[in-house]
Formats: sequence, structure tokens, C-alpha cells
Amino acid sequence: MNELAITLDTKNGTYLYEQIYQYIKNEIVEGKLSSKERLPSTRALAEHLQIARSTVELAYEQLVSEGYIEAKPYKGYFVCPVGELYHLKKEQVIKEEEKKTEASYLFDLSPNGIEMKAFPFSTWRKISRNVLAEHQKDIFEPGHPKGDSAFRNTICHYLYSFRGVSCEPEQIIVGAGNDYLLVLLGKILGEHQKVAMENPTYKRAYRIFSSAGYDMITLPIDKNGMSMEHLKASEANIAYVMPSHQFPTGVVMPIGRRMELLKWAEEVKDRYLIEDDYDSEFRYKGKPIQALQAWDKKEKVIYMGTFSKSIAPAIRVSFMVLPKPLLELYEKNAGFLSSTVSRIDQAILNEFIAGGHYERYLNKMRKIYRSKHDCLLECLRPFKHRFHISGENAGLHIVLVSREKGISEERLAKTAEKAGIKVYGMSDYFIKESVAKGQGNVCADAEDKCAKILLGYASLSEEEIREALMLLQKAWL
Amino acid sequence: MNELAITLDTKNGTYLYEQIYQYIKNEIVEGKLSSKERLPSTRALAEHLQIARSTVELAYEQLVSEGYIEAKPYKGYFVCPVGELYHLKKEQVIKEEEKKTEASYLFDLSPNGIEMKAFPFSTWRKISRNVLAEHQKDIFEPGHPKGDSAFRNTICHYLYSFRGVSCEPEQIIVGAGNDYLLVLLGKILGEHQKVAMENPTYKRAYRIFSSAGYDMITLPIDKNGMSMEHLKASEANIAYVMPSHQFPTGVVMPIGRRMELLKWAEEVKDRYLIEDDYDSEFRYKGKPIQALQAWDKKEKVIYMGTFSKSIAPAIRVSFMVLPKPLLELYEKNAGFLSSTVSRIDQAILNEFIAGGHYERYLNKMRKIYRSKHDCLLECLRPFKHRFHISGENAGLHIVLVSREKGISEERLAKTAEKAGIKVYGMSDYFIKESVAKGQGNVCADAEDKCAKILLGYASLSEEEIREALMLLQKAWL
Repeated sequence: MNELAITLDTKNGTYLYEQIYQYIKNEIVEGKLSSKERLPSTRALAEHLQIARSTVELAYEQLVSEGYIEAKPYKGYFVCPVGELYHLKKEQVIKEEEKKTEASYLFDLSPNGIEMKAFPFSTWRKISRNVLAEHQKDIFEPGHPKGDSAFRNTICHYLYSFRGVSCEPEQIIVGAGNDYLLVLLGKILGEHQKVAMENPTYKRAYRIFSSAGYDMITLPIDKNGMSMEHLKASEANIAYVMPSHQFPTGVVMPIGRRMELLKWAEEVKDRYLIEDDYDSEFRYKGKPIQALQAWDKKEKVIYMGTFSKSIAPAIRVSFMVLPKPLLELYEKNAGFLSSTVSRIDQAILNEFIAGGHYERYLNKMRKIYRSKHDCLLECLRPFKHRFHISGENAGLHIVLVSREKGISEERLAKTAEKAGIKVYGMSDYFIKESVAKGQGNVCADAEDKCAKILLGYASLSEEEIREALMLLQKAWL
Repeated sequence: MNELAITLDTKNGTYLYEQIYQYIKNEIVEGKLSSKERLPSTRALAEHLQIARSTVELAYEQLVSEGYIEAKPYKGYFVCPVGELYHLKKEQVIKEEEKKTEASYLFDLSPNGIEMKAFPFSTWRKISRNVLAEHQKDIFEPGHPKGDSAFRNTICHYLYSFRGVSCEPEQIIVGAGNDYLLVLLGKILGEHQKVAMENPTYKRAYRIFSSAGYDMITLPIDKNGMSMEHLKASEANIAYVMPSHQFPTGVVMPIGRRMELLKWAEEVKDRYLIEDDYDSEFRYKGKPIQALQAWDKKEKVIYMGTFSKSIAPAIRVSFMVLPKPLLELYEKNAGFLSSTVSRIDQAILNEFIAGGHYERYLNKMRKIYRSKHDCLLECLRPFKHRFHISGENAGLHIVLVSREKGISEERLAKTAEKAGIKVYGMSDYFIKESVAKGQGNVCADAEDKCAKILLGYASLSEEEIREALMLLQKAWL
């Protein structure tokens, strides 16, 4: 038995038991006390150090709990065989992560921007305050995996009134953003799905399904949306479409194509349509077009909606409506997963929608976006001999199509960049991989002859739009 | 060309253009107007109806956008070939979802409960208010996929100070709950992993990894945690452990076993340890035991922590610390996925931790839980001749082990239920499937001879604990 050469420091603010614990631990870690060696008894060490025996006991107990030493009845404390012990990592200096500074443009015409200035912050704050004040404890308790039932009831009513979507609250799954819901959908549907997507498309969905191990099939888009001819020739059992406003082309799918899609889905039992209704709230001509789901009588449409686009990207709340036959699969494959949305956020959003604030806000935003949209179209007049416009009247971006075949998107983007304007070429949204797994991929359209440029206007003011377009005019025309 | 037999109703509050739109749409849907049929010109219809031509134009435009009719230059408007049209689903009466009424017990000794009474609601409210007031727009903008950098910096400091975990903020991924992070981890690691878990274990993790298509291997637990002998004999490349307080057995893994695990992981390049540190905040004897990650010098430990247990289940915020070699895989396989936690929630939690409120709250809760824990142990004295206790001194539940072999968990649970007490048998946490995919599964322990009952005490008051245990005593002894 070693005499332990501990020196206690009564002034450094560390508990005495902690000092003893630390000393013995270090001796073991550094191999100075070796396996099976007996420690001095608590009484002996206490006397030696002139401290209370309970202090030594506390230190020994901690060493026992962590497995450095063990207590043998009637025999005392012994060092455990701890194998090769590693040293704790050295004290680190944590490098604070800094925000990346982004390449600076005067104006960024990103199709993904949104406008937040008109957001009713004070209403939101007030609702937040009330929710926290009224609910107290219950709101911190675990929620339903699908989302709180009051919130799902509200979404259900909203969807019926504004999108014609007819479903029951039990069909709605609330989740932390579209990406999460697509991942979840992958879990629900299970392996071996063959998903057809338009090309160009929402690349993120493509990547999520790819990473779920699905066979991905990219199909060309004609003026009415996904090519039915190619879909029928493919082996796909799921078609992912954005009928209200295809991203990024802006195509609005006419009723005829919608019916063809539904018919295709009905022909085979496990065929489904995923309707991504990401920006259906914003339509500037006439009345909003009903969702594809509104026509679906055979439970074939998986409807996806989000508040990240219509309220704020930082609000991570999206939802999907599962056709009833998929509910059983949901329970089996994903029903055990907890909800990903805080109940406080659900309660705030619930009140925001049910209290009519959401509708008012959407009406206000529709007006603001329409005005920006019109302003952009106005500014594009001088461009008309070189470009024509498509994808207008809805969503938060339009598409400029070059009338000349010789000009590349890269060249247009570069000249714009020199003038301080960031624009986005359509080719960025094409899936180019010759996707080995899938069959019947048609990527021909990726080599489309005419340059197409996306111009997003949501996050700029009308003055900024005018200024940006003036600069673009000088650069391009 | 049909004469349209529209009758307009100027009194019913529906816009005239809407009435025309609806009428023509219905005619098409019902097949009364057929494909390629020509509609009356806008002028003719306007004259016929004695209304402004622009009203008719508006209706026609809407029909064009939705694809019911098309405009042919110099020829007029024609009905589109829309194939078989489905009728819109009938107007529905949305069945409000009601909350399920749960089976009623007098007291539920669930190991998953937590206590919320001491939560500093007013502080939380105040921080929420400040966050919303100070940040305004920026907080509603899209955040970093890993989580906001200020929040990750704070977590990093917290982990270092309280758990000895040493990492850099770039290694931290914030996500909406543990389940989500496990799903994400599945995406990051990719296919073909072989995961060893203790049995009994945290079943949810087992199911999530199974659903990622992983080979799952269940291993027995000895008094020090996962059996190394069985782990070495298995083909696993990942071991999922809960060293601070194994769920549900309550085993605290001693330093020796921790070292053996690290050594095992270091032997082969793609071996990793997942350390689920779900309730490490609550230890009632001595000081908290450092995380396994604190000893990991070779970047082998994937550390998982959560605020859902230490603050509230409804707060869907967890985080994981990836070893540096996995960061590249994260970027490739999952870096494109948006964050699942609202930036507002991140900012509130950030302030709650950085402002010292979290530490104070944990100290308060540790005291409260310790007192409940001690109260429960006190109440269990009369049980000692029939049961012994394990898994105490940490976490939010203890385990009662029957000294008699003949008594089944079911019988104990049933007699408890009759007395109004809900208790949980250990066998509920065993993975019983003879998991076809994995190799080397050892389920022998599932047939353990002695009944083991979990008693959770977190959500009950001390008075309730006393009352519940009195009833249990009458029922069992």
C-alpha cells in the first residue's frame, strides 16, 4: 500500500474531497497507482491529512462510481483494472465559429428570398406572450407525434377553405420543415420506390429521395408540366409535381394534365403523386387555383405545404397530408418518431391562423408581391426584344428566356455579376447526374438551347428592383 | 357554339366574374361543354349578359390559367381536352380530432416523466419577449443547417464545462429532438452499418436504425454495461451506449469499460461509438461523471445530448457532436438539409444557457429530483426483503429487482394496476425480435429469471410518491 503524497490546498476554492478524488484519479490515470493496489483506509487517510473521515469517504465514493477503484467488504478499497488509460484531452481553446462573409452583390435576385418587412411582429410577440402565459406547464409536456390536435384541426380547416384540400386531421403530419417531412416520407413509404421528378426541379427533394435509396427518374417538362408520355414510359410509381407553380420553370399545370396524372396514379395500386404546394399562396391573376389534392378521389395525392415560405424560413413548420391508405404505413414505419416541432411554436401558429392573422398577412403579402411582380415586369419592357418572359403571375420569381440561341447563361450571369447583380441560371436547377439507378431518364432538356435566367424579386423593394434592372439593362442590352 | 344559359345573381355576394367562371367550369366538368367547342366571344357574352366586357375577360382568363379553356389568336376561346374530369370531392364536414382519454391510474410511475413545476416560466417568457423584440427581421431569416453559430458556440462551452466534452462548434449539429438526429445520423453514416445495442435498451433508437436498413445486433449487459466479449465477437462497427446511466437498467459504465470500448473503436477505421448522454444532468451522489467523449482522442465518439429531458419534452432541441472525420460525410450526405429548429427557439435557448439560467435551473432540479429519489428509496425500505434496488443515484427512475424467481413482471404490474398504480416491467424494453438481419444477437437476457420493475418518480410530488408506494406496498407485500 502506497502512502499517498497528497497535499491539500485549503485556499484554492476546490473542495477537499474533490482534491483527493482528483489526486487519486491522476495517480491511476498516470499509472502510478496500479491495478489491484490497495488504497489507504478512509480512516488512515483522514488522520494523515487531518481532515474529516467523511471527506475522504466522499472522494472514494466518487472514484467507485466512476469505476477507478472498487470497495471490497472487510478488505478496503482497491484500484480497478482499467486497462490502458487515456489521458483526458487537453484543455481546449474553443474557436468561436464566425459567420461567413458572403460574396457581396449590390442586389441579389435570388428566387428563394422572401420579404419580412410587413410581418406583424407585434402580433406575433403578443400571441407568443399569451401562449406562454396561458398554457404554463401543459405546453411543455410531450405532444402528439403528428402534431397537436388543435393545430392539425386548424390546418385542416385552412386547407379546405383556401386550397380546396379535403382531409381529416388524422391525415395531417406536422414537421420541422419540408426537408424533414420528405425524409419522414421516405421512412413511411419504405424502400424500393421509383420517383419521377421534373427536370429542372426542386433539387433538394431529389437529393433527399436519392439518399433514401430511391430510384430517381428525371422527366422533361412541356408547357403543361411533367411529360405524361415520358412518365408512362418510365417505371416510376411516384411522381413529384408542383402543379400550382413548378419550381423553377413557373409552369402552372392545367386541369387536363392534372387529370391525366390522377388517372396514371389510379391505374396501379402503389402509385402516388406528391403535390408540393410550396408557394400556392401567391397568385396575382384571378383566384387561386385549387390544389391537385382537391380532385383526388382515390387517395392518391400526398400533399405538402409549408409556413416557411409564407411566414418565414426561420419558422420550421411544414405539414403533409397523407392519403388514408398510407396512415397504416405511417403508424408502422414512423409512428414512433416524436414530433419535431415545439408545442409552443405549434400553439403560436395555431393562434396566428385561427385568429385570422395569417389570412390577413397573406392578403397583405399578396398585394406587396403583386406590386413588386408588376414593377419587375414593367422594368423588363426594354428587355423584350432580346428575352421573353415566362412563369409570371404566381410565386416569387419569373423566368427570362433569351430569344437568341448563341448566348450562354454563364455569360449572362457573369456580365450581371460585374454590374453587381446576382442572377440565377436555369441550368443550376437541372439534375445532371446520369443517375445510374433509374431507368428512362431523359436529360435532353438540360441541354436546352436558349439561356433562361431566374429573377427573384421577393426580398427587394420596388426601388431596388428598378435600380437592379437598370443596371442589368446596361449590362445586357 | 353554345349559347351559354348563365343566369347571374347580383345579390348573392359572389363576384359576377366568379359566377361566370364557375358556370363554365361546371359545364366543362359535367361534360355539357365538350372538348374543342368554341365559347362565345367576350364581347358577345358581355352583351348577352348586359355586363362589362372586362368581367367576362376576367372569368375567361381564370379558366385559361386553370387550363379549362384556351385562347387561339384571331379565333377565340375553345374548351381544352381535359380527359375524364373528376368531380371535386364533396364538401366535407371536418371531424375534429379529439384527445384520447388515457387509461386512468391514480399514479403513473413512468420512467419518462419529468417535473415542470419548478421551470422558470417567467424567465423563459422574458427571454422570449426580448428575443422577439431585439431581433425583429433577422431572426426570421434562414439559419445555418447545423444551427446558429452563436447557439453552437454556447453549447460547445456548456459541454466543455459540464460534461468534459471537447469539440469545436463546427462539429455540433442542432436538431429537432433525438429521434430526428438519429434519423440524420443514419443519412450521414450511409448504408450498411452494423449497430450493436445493449438489450434492454432505448427501443426508439433501435427502431430508427432498423428503419435506416442497418443490421442491428443486440448484446447483453453485465454490471459494467455492454458486454465487451459479445461486442468483440459480433460484426458490429458501431456501438450505441449510454455510459452515464444506461436506459433502462441504470448501469453507470465504469472507466475501465469505457476504455475498453474506446480501444475497440480504435482498432478499425470505420468503427464508432454513439454516446447517448440523455440524462447525465441528474446525478445525486458526488459529482457528475465526465462523458465518454472526454476521453476520446481518436475521434471515435458521436456524442448526443438533448434539452428535451433537462428542460421539457415539448422543447424539440437536441444536438450531436460529430467526430471530425464524419464532418465531410455530413456535408456530402446531409449538409443540404435545412435546420429543423426555429431560429427563435435557438436564440431563446442560447440566452437561457449563456445567461446562466440553465445552470441554475439544473441545480434546482437536481436538488428536487434528489429529494424525490431519496424519498422513493425511503419508501422502498419495507420492500427490501422481497426486492433489491439497482440503477439508483442517477437519472429519473430506479429499478426494483425481485428476489424471488417465481414472480412475473406481468403479475406485479397487474396487481399494481388494480391498486391504481402504473409501473413498467423491464421486459418492455427488451428487443425481442429475432432480428433476422444481424448476426451474433444474444437475446438470452430477455428471458432473465427475476422480475424487474422500473419506478419513475420525476413527475410525482414527494407526497404522491409516498401515497403511491403505500398503495404498492399493500398490493405487493
